[in-house]
Amino acid sequence: MDSGKVIVTCALTGGMTVPAQSPAIPVTVAQIIEEGVAAAEAGAAVLHIHVREESTGRPVQDVELFTRVVEGLRERTDAVLQPTTGGGRGMTITERAAVVPHLKPEMATFNAGSFNFGLYPVARRDLDFQDWEREYLEGTRDYVFRNTFSDMEYLAGLMKEARTRPEIEIYDVGQLYNIRRLVADGVLEAPFNLQFVLGVLGANAVEADQLVHMVRTAERLFGVGGFTWSAAGIGYPGQYQVAALALVMGGNLRVGLEDNLRVRRGEQAKSNADLVTKVVELAGLFDRTPATPAEAREFLGLRGA
Amino acid sequence: MDSGKVIVTCALTGGMTVPAQSPAIPVTVAQIIEEGVAAAEAGAAVLHIHVREESTGRPVQDVELFTRVVEGLRERTDAVLQPTTGGGRGMTITERAAVVPHLKPEMATFNAGSFNFGLYPVARRDLDFQDWEREYLEGTRDYVFRNTFSDMEYLAGLMKEARTRPEIEIYDVGQLYNIRRLVADGVLEAPFNLQFVLGVLGANAVEADQLVHMVRTAERLFGVGGFTWSAAGIGYPGQYQVAALALVMGGNLRVGLEDNLRVRRGEQAKSNADLVTKVVELAGLFDRTPATPAEAREFLGLRGA
Amino acid sequence: MDSGKVIVTCALTGGMTVPAQSPAIPVTVAQIIEEGVAAAEAGAAVLHIHVREESTGRPVQDVELFTRVVEGLRERTDAVLQPTTGGGRGMTITERAAVVPHLKPEMATFNAGSFNFGLYPVARRDLDFQDWEREYLEGTRDYVFRNTFSDMEYLAGLMKEARTRPEIEIYDVGQLYNIRRLVADGVLEAPFNLQFVLGVLGANAVEADQLVHMVRTAERLFGVGGFTWSAAGIGYPGQYQVAALALVMGGNLRVGLEDNLRVRRGEQAKSNADLVTKVVELAGLFDRTPATPAEAREFLGLRGA
Amino acid sequence: MDSGKVIVTCALTGGMTVPAQSPAIPVTVAQIIEEGVAAAEAGAAVLHIHVREESTGRPVQDVELFTRVVEGLRERTDAVLQPTTGGGRGMTITERAAVVPHLKPEMATFNAGSFNFGLYPVARRDLDFQDWEREYLEGTRDYVFRNTFSDMEYLAGLMKEARTRPEIEIYDVGQLYNIRRLVADGVLEAPFNLQFVLGVLGANAVEADQLVHMVRTAERLFGVGGFTWSAAGIGYPGQYQVAALALVMGGNLRVGLEDNLRVRRGEQAKSNADLVTKVVELAGLFDRTPATPAEAREFLGLRGA
Repeated sequence: MDSGKVIVTCALTGGMTVPAQSPAIPVTVAQIIEEGVAAAEAGAAVLHIHVREESTGRPVQDVELFTRVVEGLRERTDAVLQPTTGGGRGMTITERAAVVPHLKPEMATFNAGSFNFGLYPVARRDLDFQDWEREYLEGTRDYVFRNTFSDMEYLAGLMKEARTRPEIEIYDVGQLYNIRRLVADGVLEAPFNLQFVLGVLGANAVEADQLVHMVRTAERLFGVGGFTWSAAGIGYPGQYQVAALALVMGGNLRVGLEDNLRVRRGEQAKSNADLVTKVVELAGLFDRTPATPAEAREFLGLRGA
Repeated sequence: MDSGKVIVTCALTGGMTVPAQSPAIPVTVAQIIEEGVAAAEAGAAVLHIHVREESTGRPVQDVELFTRVVEGLRERTDAVLQPTTGGGRGMTITERAAVVPHLKPEMATFNAGSFNFGLYPVARRDLDFQDWEREYLEGTRDYVFRNTFSDMEYLAGLMKEARTRPEIEIYDVGQLYNIRRLVADGVLEAPFNLQFVLGVLGANAVEADQLVHMVRTAERLFGVGGFTWSAAGIGYPGQYQVAALALVMGGNLRVGLEDNLRVRRGEQAKSNADLVTKVVELAGLFDRTPATPAEAREFLGLRGA
Repeated sequence: MDSGKVIVTCALTGGMTVPAQSPAIPVTVAQIIEEGVAAAEAGAAVLHIHVREESTGRPVQDVELFTRVVEGLRERTDAVLQPTTGGGRGMTITERAAVVPHLKPEMATFNAGSFNFGLYPVARRDLDFQDWEREYLEGTRDYVFRNTFSDMEYLAGLMKEARTRPEIEIYDVGQLYNIRRLVADGVLEAPFNLQFVLGVLGANAVEADQLVHMVRTAERLFGVGGFTWSAAGIGYPGQYQVAALALVMGGNLRVGLEDNLRVRRGEQAKSNADLVTKVVELAGLFDRTPATPAEAREFLGLRGA
Repeated sequence: MDSGKVIVTCALTGGMTVPAQSPAIPVTVAQIIEEGVAAAEAGAAVLHIHVREESTGRPVQDVELFTRVVEGLRERTDAVLQPTTGGGRGMTITERAAVVPHLKPEMATFNAGSFNFGLYPVARRDLDFQDWEREYLEGTRDYVFRNTFSDMEYLAGLMKEARTRPEIEIYDVGQLYNIRRLVADGVLEAPFNLQFVLGVLGANAVEADQLVHMVRTAERLFGVGGFTWSAAGIGYPGQYQVAALALVMGGNLRVGLEDNLRVRRGEQAKSNADLVTKVVELAGLFDRTPATPAEAREFLGLRGA
């Protein structure tokens, strides 16, 4: 890929926020499709997809909803469609992984370890929560996002079978060593795409020091040519800080309402496209323009939809 | 504490290894006491204690066994006795924490987050395993060492009540941010002692980069005066590498058969005291002599047994 | 200073480039004044000033020229006027320092150590050099930018007398330890403003790793509250990369034709204001607006013109 | 080289200390030879050589003295003899480099940049200085250790002609980028041996952070296989701290009375061999034994004496 390009991934809705946090979070299949199409038009080459129960907005991992979202998006955009295998609070690895054999996507996420995923501080905010929402957030006080070695081996097997390339989500430094172990055991094969996700309470934080340290640790473990990478910052202004760091360091980047709800201080984004538009502007200041889906596929070694 | 001193903690037996790995691992109450006394005589000011089922060597969190070990040690040594609240595979936080209200120790460990704790590669080795041992190790392939925010809040409450000072075990970078959150929420209070544990498969690894990075991250979060610290390396030669780094960086250190079984390449330690003796020699090359239990208590702010 | 502010310093013309590199480089007193006024209007709160021989554009350290520039600027802008004491190739510390007792500026630069300052690769470019220009650049192959401890002590004395606050220019890591020595010897007093200048051939380079490392080293040596800081990247795209890093890390920033001649890939800046405008746009993406001269004076502890 | 080996370099006398600092510093040709032989017997595979005026102990760069030292050592030891091209205060590059064409050594040092080399704080100590000694030290207040790009190009040319391999002395981070430039210009060729020298006032300091950062920067610039490395800490306890870090990180190490005069706190070394013996003991704790001269030659790619 031309070094003047940057792959923008947009994480459209996520599985750890609740609709009360922002009216912009897409909930229904139709909304997710609309958001995805607009994000792609704004510059996203990869759409990272979760689904939600349409009546409530509760995160679910329903393959039927995934199918409808993916089919709807495929009709209207060429973007890489990347379903999550992370899901939301309380889902088993079997539920989370089902999307892989079912949809056989060209790419899906692969979470690299277990850690607390704490959203409970959000429950303290003065928002107009539905019944289940506060409980969902508050429940993360006692929640582990579980990705054991066994879980990872299981998921990697499904991905190989489906010819789905993993995007490996790295939330903390030690997870890079987990991946090294899986590579040594033949479970995963380099090169792969690492997504450094910073800012989850329970894992590593948004700081220049942390991203630099994680990228360099990855380079030591896998070699400079052994992986490609992208970075995502959770929250505001973390999303833009991490995007800027990734641009300076030569990586790709992820934004989206899954990770952050604001477009600037004191102002909520109206759509995923708002967020994509902002980082496209930022990238422009560094002479980088958004990669097309075709360019992203080539760079990431994807087989196509 | 005089900068010419170093607090040596000895982790006598642990909860994640199995007896087949080394005949030196103490199993019975009597053995653990003997090992602890000898380690203290060799220079350890703090004894970190787990217990094992006496007939099999299987890690358990039996408060009665803890009581016998602690009472036995108290008769023969002035060392700080630091029971684990980490326990072993598959124990609940309630089981693990019971030792605190029961024994009201002056200090106990406090694990700072959830992560995979993978010992399954050990099960591949050609050792003379008992029936349960291989299963115990192999079972860690699907194991999360679970310390949710809720678990940590529960344990911190028990410790406050028992006037037990936590030693906070940090296995990966993000766990420092967990602690920052607990401090912000009033759950924990600085200053505290951090034990950086490097080398667990599932968390951060033994590398100079990692210890330097973690200590500096802690300094940014808590201030240089906001904590004291020690470091432990798992495995061989990690235990001595981390000890040397800690000595160079001005920290304290932990050794012991919980973490490492070898005294030098190709040679198993015959006792915990062997390991303590080796790091005391290493410390001597840096003009540091072992702190006495009294010096350690003062430095760590302990109330005494 | 409100954390939503950023102090932009503009280095108007410099002493190490030659006019053949860009027609935008201001040369005459009138040009430097015009550029300074426009840069201040675009958002610069501090103007860093060198002077050049008006007929040739050759860097000189002529106090008479400095006086004319400073007086001309003072009539038209409230910006902090910060003369260099670095000068250009081959000047003695006495020549370089004369501006301090002569003008008694509220702030001036203070270079923190000696190092090669290599511009000779520029002489290879196919530019329409005047006779002296290629020689000036090529001569840096054998040039040391000389700032001995003795030089620094001399300059610090003059600054104290003139009540001029030093802005300490840090080009490499070891120079931070030089400053620590001068502080220990009572030559300099904290707090001070550090300007991290990255990208000079002969000193440290533009990389996220380097800025993070230098800022953190400074924090260890002087304490988080012991200094304020800004950063400048030499060359393109280094200037904008360093600006973005500074914004993410909470520092201030310096741009200007002294450091970089391009506004974007393949396009030379037409003025210093072009560069200021670009980083003001960048800062806006991080919710930061340019500090006024008054805000900068308060933040930097300046006494005013 | 077997990873169980470590190349110990001993810097026998140096050019920046004065005899009043320790009676152990060898001064005459005979003393330097005796010290070198004993250091080699204690485990040093490489002897780094300066010479001093025999009547006063003043550092000089006299090729005749070098010849006598080298010839004397060659008769009695197989160690690699590595003359300095750094010399002492106030010597020109021509004087410093003369040893290369004259002796055609298999290896010599190559200093990678210019910086202040400040020994003047030593002049404040209450020592029984000879007339010239205090002046020599005090004079470094106004001293630059000068190694311009031009100087480095000149020296590299002489080394190529003499088939002398450079050992590149790195005192600060930016010097690594100097070397990258010289490699890009064909002046130097990888792979080479880097000696990281920490603790000179004027350059980078003894801290774990600094060595880790410099080694990793070198890996990014030259590739992990693009260089071998060693490290030296100046002063006490810096010499042993850096040795320990190098052992942990897999590097080689340098000790010697050039760099440090003490064997432990409060006790001066009686000889270079004392220092070598101490680090050999330290290395033994990490399962590393001293490389023989033959092993060092193979590892460093030397042609032999």
